[in-house]
Amino acid sequence: MHAAVRELQAEQGRGDLTIPQIAARAGVTPSTLYRRWGDLQELLSDVAVERLRPEAPPADHGNLRADLEHWAAAFLEEMSSPPGRSYIRDALAGDPDGSNSGQCSAYAVDQVDTILSRAAERGEHVPDTDTVMDHVVAPVMYRILFRPGLLDPQYARDLVATVLYRLMPLP
Amino acid sequence: MHAAVRELQAEQGRGDLTIPQIAARAGVTPSTLYRRWGDLQELLSDVAVERLRPEAPPADHGNLRADLEHWAAAFLEEMSSPPGRSYIRDALAGDPDGSNSGQCSAYAVDQVDTILSRAAERGEHVPDTDTVMDHVVAPVMYRILFRPGLLDPQYARDLVATVLYRLMPLP
Repeated sequence: MHAAVRELQAEQGRGDLTIPQIAARAGVTPSTLYRRWGDLQELLSDVAVERLRPEAPPADHGNLRADLEHWAAAFLEEMSSPPGRSYIRDALAGDPDGSNSGQCSAYAVDQVDTILSRAAERGEHVPDTDTVMDHVVAPVMYRILFRPGLLDPQYARDLVATVLYRLMPLP
Repeated sequence: MHAAVRELQAEQGRGDLTIPQIAARAGVTPSTLYRRWGDLQELLSDVAVERLRPEAPPADHGNLRADLEHWAAAFLEEMSSPPGRSYIRDALAGDPDGSNSGQCSAYAVDQVDTILSRAAERGEHVPDTDTVMDHVVAPVMYRILFRPGLLDPQYARDLVATVLYRLMPLP
């Protein structure tokens, strides 16, 4: 099903997909899809969340600042790309119970946790995960959704510096 | 048109509106609506943005911290209420060119600007508007959209304290 949606989106963009078309491509009946997903938006939301799943743990650059800067700049670039924006909007739009948007933030929490645990094991002083979510991930996502003119990778790196040099509790 | 949508939403919830139904309530033909709005989502997005417009400037409590805390707690409560969440999702969903989501952040920028200008006139030391957008508005909106279990008015007040006591440049 997910493969059918991805193929059709790649062929014709995302504006005009229909459930019967997706069913035909996937080789099932439309009623099979309607039983599993209430409507097209919910199907697209599930597909989008799957595509937003990180493919690998954050790279290890040897220290907390480098790890967070690289991860935050890559997160900004990926999420603010045209496909990234589409997936975020699709994930939010067909999500009546909030489980898909919750999954999006859970992916980011996992990635941040990985970076912070690795730094703590190195003996580095680390912020807590919610500080990074609130002051790096949230501002990036807010600009992607609401202020798209104000985005570049340096913005993500500046937010990381703010967390590390102004928002960390004293060791 | 906006009134027709609001009435129908109040009567039957937002799940099942159709363009013909809205046209009938507004006393116009469906083709009139299709000419102005490409589809139902775009119409609902415009209505949602109109309903997110602040009704009044932020209240004056006599000092910057009180003004920001009251405004941020009220913003969180309004945007995280069931109607607030619906409007935000509608505004984002039917917004092909990003103008409606941009308008949502412009409303918040205006309110924050008003609070900061008033404080500066009183002679108070103030942060810049983007610091408040990035570290108060963005975290609140991110939790509303992606982490809805983690919201209460104290969270908004704590974010204001972080901006005022940790993120302000020295006077």
